[in-house]
Amino acid sequence: MKIAIDGMGGDNAPMAVVEGVVEALKEHNDMEIYITGPKDKIEAEFNKHTYPKDKVTIVDASEVISTNEHPVMALRRKKDSSIVKALNLVKSGECEGIISAGSTGAFLAGCTLIVGRIKGVERPSLAPIMPGRRGSFMIIDAGANVDCKPGYLVQFAKMGKIYYESVFKKNNPSVGLINIGAEEEKGNELTKATYKLLKEEDMNFVGNVEPRDIPTGDVDVLVCDGFVGNTALKLYEGAAMNLLGIIKDHIMEASALSKLGAALLKPVFKKLMIKFDYKEVGGAPFLGVDGICIKAHGSSDGKAFKNAIRQTKIFHEGKVIDKIKVELGQNN
Amino acid sequence: MKIAIDGMGGDNAPMAVVEGVVEALKEHNDMEIYITGPKDKIEAEFNKHTYPKDKVTIVDASEVISTNEHPVMALRRKKDSSIVKALNLVKSGECEGIISAGSTGAFLAGCTLIVGRIKGVERPSLAPIMPGRRGSFMIIDAGANVDCKPGYLVQFAKMGKIYYESVFKKNNPSVGLINIGAEEEKGNELTKATYKLLKEEDMNFVGNVEPRDIPTGDVDVLVCDGFVGNTALKLYEGAAMNLLGIIKDHIMEASALSKLGAALLKPVFKKLMIKFDYKEVGGAPFLGVDGICIKAHGSSDGKAFKNAIRQTKIFHEGKVIDKIKVELGQNN
Repeated sequence: MKIAIDGMGGDNAPMAVVEGVVEALKEHNDMEIYITGPKDKIEAEFNKHTYPKDKVTIVDASEVISTNEHPVMALRRKKDSSIVKALNLVKSGECEGIISAGSTGAFLAGCTLIVGRIKGVERPSLAPIMPGRRGSFMIIDAGANVDCKPGYLVQFAKMGKIYYESVFKKNNPSVGLINIGAEEEKGNELTKATYKLLKEEDMNFVGNVEPRDIPTGDVDVLVCDGFVGNTALKLYEGAAMNLLGIIKDHIMEASALSKLGAALLKPVFKKLMIKFDYKEVGGAPFLGVDGICIKAHGSSDGKAFKNAIRQTKIFHEGKVIDKIKVELGQNN
Repeated sequence: MKIAIDGMGGDNAPMAVVEGVVEALKEHNDMEIYITGPKDKIEAEFNKHTYPKDKVTIVDASEVISTNEHPVMALRRKKDSSIVKALNLVKSGECEGIISAGSTGAFLAGCTLIVGRIKGVERPSLAPIMPGRRGSFMIIDAGANVDCKPGYLVQFAKMGKIYYESVFKKNNPSVGLINIGAEEEKGNELTKATYKLLKEEDMNFVGNVEPRDIPTGDVDVLVCDGFVGNTALKLYEGAAMNLLGIIKDHIMEASALSKLGAALLKPVFKKLMIKFDYKEVGGAPFLGVDGICIKAHGSSDGKAFKNAIRQTKIFHEGKVIDKIKVELGQNN
């Protein structure tokens, strides 16, 4: 398959992007990479590595869209940006997928405006996978749609289910509605109406999931509006970092014996950090657009890009887009 | 001061309630407690302790409202319930405050319907205090109002500021808006409109607080609608418990050396548990009603009730209700 990568997206671009590409090409020999950005800069990075030159095409792009710019305006003005050039490669059909660690706003808007929605999908949706205590879970929508109608959430549930099923090879994954109460009649106007719709759907709908239970990972696909999803996603990360920070604070003030204890526990904390390491996951799929679109973390390193490339491949092999078209494509 | 306590509220009632009362009366000699519930049952609990009998009045109440009942219907039907009897003590002016660890829904509805809103307050609001890395922070609203208008959130900010200032004795506490982005133009319709209003207010408004930064405790009063607030509150608790659970899981599977490390670190983990112990905090104030209303945690033990009683006293001494009347009371 052919994958387009925004060579200038993310805090560590283009170095980390190129590293990820080089590593990915060692693992997958059925892949071609199109990387966008200033040709000389990207070339200089590749020249630091040995890699199969026939598998890499550098697509020159002189501009970069920063995270501070207005997404839609920047997309319109900066036609020669690394992100727009990469999106055009998917639009034209030259590439099947795109990965970017650049501005989330510009990337999501670009996926919708340039790559385009799948007909029948009302709102494409961001669906990151998070580490839970007993398994990984998806939050959909995690920030693309901050004001939602119940029908959107039903589509999020369907798309999330298809992705989870196809990528994690789990039959009939459980789908839950993030809500502040377990009973059907709990919640705000949106969740109450959504519950009624979801229970009529042909899926493994397990009802409301209270926020306290999100981190267990017991429910696979967690549906919510993008404001709540983004809040949950970022607070979950923040709470974990904060708690580890508090533990560290306490250890610094603790006795020599406790400090010894902390040293002995290092392997455990290391495992924990790996579990919470977004770099292991790759990126968040943006579901509902007519191409494989993966949003990588802004601070992605080479390993994160390598894993995002692997994820793009699994996404492709799982025929997620075809399945979404079959499931949702009939509506208009 | 005189405080009404729902003797049958919470998982450990009436035992834990009575324990808390007895302990509180050892610390405060300027206090009288009115405790509601089946007289014989409550008396039997008190008979296990030595306590100043002239400071305690048992108000007989034969019924209990459970958490499964519809709040408003239950309040109407069960006039002889421990919670309704306690609320009436505040309504009549016999007591200045009420504490309950019973059904949150019934308690909040009862505070509004029986004790009554302060004139000018559009929506009374639940405002728990949470432990952060560098300080305690308040979330307002944490679940009383799931569908909100911008004007409600401005009132939450004002009431939260008054409470934080009066109870934590911190001049001009910082007020932030929970939002998914730092910039003014980020967020959903509600937060965008609220931002515009808050920046015009005479308070230390520090702008948007991204969910990742909530747990730092750097901002004192965090404003949001009740759906987002309840989600943040419960996810924060859930994430902390989950993370400690994962650490435990890893330790169980770890080497003998790591297990030794964990044993040596016990004092640190113990400190951590105390930091996250809701029992230390007391309960969550319900602000905007014309009486001191404290919602204690459902699983409160004696210590939690003792601290909730102390908190009621500080609330009283801080003249929070008078200040809310001055600040918000002019509107209607």
